[in-house]
Amino acid sequence: MSYKAPVKDLLFNIEHLANIEAVAQLPGFEEAGLDTAQAVLQECAKFNEDVVAPLNVVGDTQPSSWKDGQVTTSPGFKQAFAQYAEGGWQGLQHDAEFGGQGLPKTIGAACQEILNSANLSFALCPLLTDGAIEALLTAGSDALKATYLEKLISGQWTGTMNLTEPQAGSDLALVRSRAEPQPDGSYKVFGTKIFITYGEHDMAENIVHLVLARVAGAPEGVKGISLFVVPKFLVNADGSLGERNDVHCVSIEHKLGIKASPTAVLQFGDHGGAIGYLVGEENRGLEYMFIMMNAARYAVGVQGIAVSERAYQQAVAYARERVQSRPVDGSVKGSAPIIHHPDVRRMLMTMRALTEGTRATALTAAAAYDAAHRHPDAQVRQENQAFYEFMVPLVKGYSTEISQEVTALGVQVHGGMGFIEETGAAQHYRDCKILTIYEGTTAIQANDLVGRKTGRDGGQVAKAIAERIAKTEQELAALGTEPAQAVARELAAARQAYLDVVDFIVANSRENPNAAYAGSVPYLMLAGNLVAGWNLGRALLAAQAERAKGQDQAFCDAKITTAHFYAEHILPRTKALRDAIVNGAHSVTELPLDGF
Amino acid sequence: MSYKAPVKDLLFNIEHLANIEAVAQLPGFEEAGLDTAQAVLQECAKFNEDVVAPLNVVGDTQPSSWKDGQVTTSPGFKQAFAQYAEGGWQGLQHDAEFGGQGLPKTIGAACQEILNSANLSFALCPLLTDGAIEALLTAGSDALKATYLEKLISGQWTGTMNLTEPQAGSDLALVRSRAEPQPDGSYKVFGTKIFITYGEHDMAENIVHLVLARVAGAPEGVKGISLFVVPKFLVNADGSLGERNDVHCVSIEHKLGIKASPTAVLQFGDHGGAIGYLVGEENRGLEYMFIMMNAARYAVGVQGIAVSERAYQQAVAYARERVQSRPVDGSVKGSAPIIHHPDVRRMLMTMRALTEGTRATALTAAAAYDAAHRHPDAQVRQENQAFYEFMVPLVKGYSTEISQEVTALGVQVHGGMGFIEETGAAQHYRDCKILTIYEGTTAIQANDLVGRKTGRDGGQVAKAIAERIAKTEQELAALGTEPAQAVARELAAARQAYLDVVDFIVANSRENPNAAYAGSVPYLMLAGNLVAGWNLGRALLAAQAERAKGQDQAFCDAKITTAHFYAEHILPRTKALRDAIVNGAHSVTELPLDGF
Repeated sequence: MSYKAPVKDLLFNIEHLANIEAVAQLPGFEEAGLDTAQAVLQECAKFNEDVVAPLNVVGDTQPSSWKDGQVTTSPGFKQAFAQYAEGGWQGLQHDAEFGGQGLPKTIGAACQEILNSANLSFALCPLLTDGAIEALLTAGSDALKATYLEKLISGQWTGTMNLTEPQAGSDLALVRSRAEPQPDGSYKVFGTKIFITYGEHDMAENIVHLVLARVAGAPEGVKGISLFVVPKFLVNADGSLGERNDVHCVSIEHKLGIKASPTAVLQFGDHGGAIGYLVGEENRGLEYMFIMMNAARYAVGVQGIAVSERAYQQAVAYARERVQSRPVDGSVKGSAPIIHHPDVRRMLMTMRALTEGTRATALTAAAAYDAAHRHPDAQVRQENQAFYEFMVPLVKGYSTEISQEVTALGVQVHGGMGFIEETGAAQHYRDCKILTIYEGTTAIQANDLVGRKTGRDGGQVAKAIAERIAKTEQELAALGTEPAQAVARELAAARQAYLDVVDFIVANSRENPNAAYAGSVPYLMLAGNLVAGWNLGRALLAAQAERAKGQDQAFCDAKITTAHFYAEHILPRTKALRDAIVNGAHSVTELPLDGF
Repeated sequence: MSYKAPVKDLLFNIEHLANIEAVAQLPGFEEAGLDTAQAVLQECAKFNEDVVAPLNVVGDTQPSSWKDGQVTTSPGFKQAFAQYAEGGWQGLQHDAEFGGQGLPKTIGAACQEILNSANLSFALCPLLTDGAIEALLTAGSDALKATYLEKLISGQWTGTMNLTEPQAGSDLALVRSRAEPQPDGSYKVFGTKIFITYGEHDMAENIVHLVLARVAGAPEGVKGISLFVVPKFLVNADGSLGERNDVHCVSIEHKLGIKASPTAVLQFGDHGGAIGYLVGEENRGLEYMFIMMNAARYAVGVQGIAVSERAYQQAVAYARERVQSRPVDGSVKGSAPIIHHPDVRRMLMTMRALTEGTRATALTAAAAYDAAHRHPDAQVRQENQAFYEFMVPLVKGYSTEISQEVTALGVQVHGGMGFIEETGAAQHYRDCKILTIYEGTTAIQANDLVGRKTGRDGGQVAKAIAERIAKTEQELAALGTEPAQAVARELAAARQAYLDVVDFIVANSRENPNAAYAGSVPYLMLAGNLVAGWNLGRALLAAQAERAKGQDQAFCDAKITTAHFYAEHILPRTKALRDAIVNGAHSVTELPLDGF
């Protein structure tokens, strides 16, 4: 099944929701206006449609394989990655100082979506490399930057994040890997890391592992964790590759999905110690790791949108083609393509609305990221930073949970054929299941939303967002068309549900944490749902304005209908979530442990 | 991961919700009281826990395989099926006249759940055989009954249902297989059937295919379809096996799940014609097939409950064991098993409540089936039949949709380990995806609910159920405990949402079918949700009464808490569904076809 990048919709979002022309006012982004966005997205679409997307099924049927410590990636991956590097795609959002293109996240995120729709497994390698680059840029010494950044940004080398150990998943306080200082200022690293994405592969000359470990004598818990660079091959002073380092891939996992992406168990230091280099200061590893994590969390949210888009396209194609039964309204005599049946339409509209809604949120958040980093006014930077930080758990949590609904519907639209692996719909259903888990499960995102993003400031940022939503409602009501009024009405109800929950969370997060955290994931789903509905409401307003200007009428009408559908079918879920959170906290933890 | 049959909960349902002592008043069921139920369930639990459940993973990792027309089932399946037959399990619910045990569905359904929890793939073979038995009992000639029934009921032979063809899935009007009458009264059958579960295998001596085909000159569409028995081996007059018939398995499918269960493509008549025998009268095939389908639809609903139960047990075991992070309420110092975290509790309670709720509905419906078939009073029979028929799409549709939520949560509770196939949680997530598709997709069940079950009688049966629910609300309110009041309150709100939708469906199903059918699946989910919540409300009342009598207090408390949780967390979803159906019909079909 071929993939066609939704360039028009991405550009609509970039122009009207992310307001790219405002982004292009930011220092350093002067070249990054709508024209640039369009040129980059078209190029990105072409590369991914032609080169990366066709490898999606190949990777699923011929996963990466392990033999004697070496990992061979799926057929075609190595060549495609070389083209990816050559095209400069790895450096899209990174600093020009080290060879990147320095484009805003607003454009970069759209390209990430396209890459991930084309091939989730393939896209994971650049995703992790982005994280390694971010960590080095933020906390690495000049020497580390000089040695590693250019090679990572060019795609010559790739990066990994080494957090998880068998006993330490969500709970990094339990990390046991250790690092011993050496006289020359380097460290020797020992330990076992699991679930390391692209921890070993054959697509690049070198792999730059960023590894959490404890230095002897460090404090217990997360305050005693440091971050190290441990390259697969040591790097000589002239930048050439030196000796093989003492880090080895002892196996890769047999997984439900994203099978082309090797998930490695890495053994550090079994032959005398892996040589590592401290990033920043000792015992501040978690802080640096969070820099990588936050970028990666947003990126995983985009993966959710991306797999949803791909599943949607595939379902639409099948629904147009598969002939079965007469439409109930008699609009077709005899059997018709199943897209004529109301329930198939309901499924496709649900897939479409969820995908477009989460995309609208992600690109709106990306613009806030850009303003938070580049705006000349500190106050504006701070406001955008607060908004972006609130959005990260929503982009990660809601978009990925939604991807599971969308991909399941994708299988369902295919009927019996959906259950046959060769059809390809099932791959998306399998692949997406990791998205609600890695880079912090939905519950971890929700804890972040409850604790750091809502409880800490007494709901201030949360309520500021509600005010922005109320303003959009007023604009929709003023517009006065039937869809706009419906969206305004449903948004108002959903916003009220959200405010009730914010009050509940603020009231309980310290005094009665069990109650607040029992509602954490429902709160995340409510907030994510509302914000996506809000952004589709903004999209409706923009589409109506464009339509009035004589722009592509079919596209604008479709955008309006999609916003309308989302408001009527998806936003009402917020009421059910509100009730469960506000009325139902006690029954979550009421059953004694031995009652299960 | 081992499986422990929930015998106590099944018996609680059988005793208090299905009212087994009333079932035992029905003619022919005099022996089938609570003691019998208990004895049968304990035996059933033992067999399935020890013999069938351990083969679940084996079947997933070593699927059935095809070679030269022969299918070899997964290791151990043949031996286990021999034990299944020997134990008399195939005949549990079937007529004693042909060697069955003649037990009520109330007990049989509980055993089906246990068998399916143990191994969905294994259980499919008996499930399809049950359907073949039903069809022959209802419409077969005495000669056909004499030849086939005893062997099927003993488990010596197995049965299949051959409906689907490449162009005819949900739409049986498109069936093209044909049957030519022969001078001796038999037919020659020609055609290709796909998706035939256990269409070929090595677990029994003979396979009795029930096949839909057209006799030359038959009317177009579904009114020209006849049903035939086509045995794999012809049967001699003395009952011994004769020649190989001209039906051959040309391949089996490579599927997302239930991999041990061979899904065959069968070719009939490529070597001169497969010999078949007409069941009942020509052109009434669909009617007979619906007998099989209705039994099978209920049974597939039970599969949904069964896989949910298995996923729940596995998730609870992992959550007790996996140590990660400190509880937010400080109840444990240091890292604790994740079952201490509120969101893990929320996930486990959701899994538990959905499983127990759908079980309560299924067993309540089973008792109605028994009364509908055996009650001496025609009026009572008719009422029970109407109730049961309303329940079938709910048991099938809601329980299977729910199983997808439950198994996804099962993976989620496992975190990263859930995505690793060896853990076993992912198998349930893969296996269950077929349940919302085969034997009629959820949309097909919903069409049945909207058209035949609600529209046709102007919502009479639907509203009679609402009255029964209102009565339960009154009893709960009268009980006056906090959980009972919460359940009464949420039930009342959900019932009102349901009544609004029933009115909407009745008003639109003829005049504006697109609107009614756009809401069909949401209506099914609403009704299924409400009815499960109602039955858990009934369970709460029973548990409270048992508790007062001094019965197992921990069990009764857990039942009350589960009902309470369901009411507060699951029932509110009905409001969102109501709003989407009643307000949102237009936006479902608003987007023009080329807008997708």
